[in-house]
Amino acid sequence: MNKTNKANKQMIYGLHTVIEAIQSGKEFERIYVQKGEKGPLFNELTALIKENRLPVHQVPVHKLNRLTRGNHQGAVAFLSLIPNVSIGEIITRTFETGQDPKILVLDGVTDVRNFGALSRSALAFGFHAVVVPHKGSALIHQDAVKASAGALMKLPVSKVAHLGSSLREMKAFGLSVLGITEKASDSIRSLQVTGPIALVLGNEETGIQSSNISLCDETYRIEISEEIDSLNVSVAGAVAMYQASL
Amino acid sequence: MNKTNKANKQMIYGLHTVIEAIQSGKEFERIYVQKGEKGPLFNELTALIKENRLPVHQVPVHKLNRLTRGNHQGAVAFLSLIPNVSIGEIITRTFETGQDPKILVLDGVTDVRNFGALSRSALAFGFHAVVVPHKGSALIHQDAVKASAGALMKLPVSKVAHLGSSLREMKAFGLSVLGITEKASDSIRSLQVTGPIALVLGNEETGIQSSNISLCDETYRIEISEEIDSLNVSVAGAVAMYQASL
Repeated sequence: MNKTNKANKQMIYGLHTVIEAIQSGKEFERIYVQKGEKGPLFNELTALIKENRLPVHQVPVHKLNRLTRGNHQGAVAFLSLIPNVSIGEIITRTFETGQDPKILVLDGVTDVRNFGALSRSALAFGFHAVVVPHKGSALIHQDAVKASAGALMKLPVSKVAHLGSSLREMKAFGLSVLGITEKASDSIRSLQVTGPIALVLGNEETGIQSSNISLCDETYRIEISEEIDSLNVSVAGAVAMYQASL
Repeated sequence: MNKTNKANKQMIYGLHTVIEAIQSGKEFERIYVQKGEKGPLFNELTALIKENRLPVHQVPVHKLNRLTRGNHQGAVAFLSLIPNVSIGEIITRTFETGQDPKILVLDGVTDVRNFGALSRSALAFGFHAVVVPHKGSALIHQDAVKASAGALMKLPVSKVAHLGSSLREMKAFGLSVLGITEKASDSIRSLQVTGPIALVLGNEETGIQSSNISLCDETYRIEISEEIDSLNVSVAGAVAMYQASL
């Protein structure tokens, strides 16, 4: 079975099909709608998407044609493989069990294997959930679950519309937001975690967005040899989570 | 360009071609010869391979036919992308610069991406070389170099015929051999490196071979949540190298 077929198990298309899936309460990984498309049924779909705050991307028709050869009528959607959780609920539940929540926040990790590997390490090092933005993140499909060695079937994932708001929510719950960035002056070796935390890692190329860096309570860098530019994000994340669990 | 084409840049075949490459002093990643093949030229090749202690695999003809559609005459070889180094030389050279050698030993890491990622982390955490056995290791081709983010162009790699002998040689140089294995009773958190070391990681599925475990001066395990079976080997290696560089 090739990758396309595996991914396609999650894929539905056509205006009626997508509308019915929304009305029946299905969870969506992502909905693609055609830019500039109109008509009563299409308008009904966009109203439902808005009402339910679903993760929608407006794309040109050729992107939809690449996703399916079927008659998509301007709408292609990927159903969620794993349920979306509310980060507030996870934090509350963790506090209730007498533990300090440790949350991994991925600000734009786009590679499916990196996302899977980071989820596996998060579960291994006792983290309680992963938070990712709807947009600019790896699509959570079978390959991600495989790369996570099944961890994504156990570790709660919260997909959020706006990462900054989510970081503010976590701060309001009393979590310290710790950013891992090459631009930090403090070494990760000096990190000693004594309470609830959100550990933030950035995009493979560009790191954490500056607006999110400014929401961090502390930032740390992982010291590496001058011989090399950077660590792989899944390695950086594993090392930071290991240090945070010491 | 597909993977096959990339790998093929390193590939040569045919008895005369492979013999000439050996005689001209080329370095080989691996030579495949056909099981049960005979003839004067073939015998000349096997004698040269033996004389030069080259990494040879005897395989059935269908394996050679899968590697190339050309007239291979029972011999297909992959030239080395990176030079093979003597681990004794690296250790001596490192001591001479006033540093304690830190060597990463991979006992049967077969996944090319894991091998590349481990090499990148090794360079990042100040390790001086990687040692791998000829047999049962990932083939070092373009994908490995890519996964290493170029680290394999800087970090010396020593491919050895017998890993146990190589571990004994490192011990004779005064290196402590530290094995990372789930079967260890000491936590990696208690590891404090104060001298020269060889850090040993095992195969993705089966770990370090028991004959090599018994050559370890110390063994450590990385404590993980009961929710998950194991860490990815490239993550385990990165965490161990990070701890060893603290």
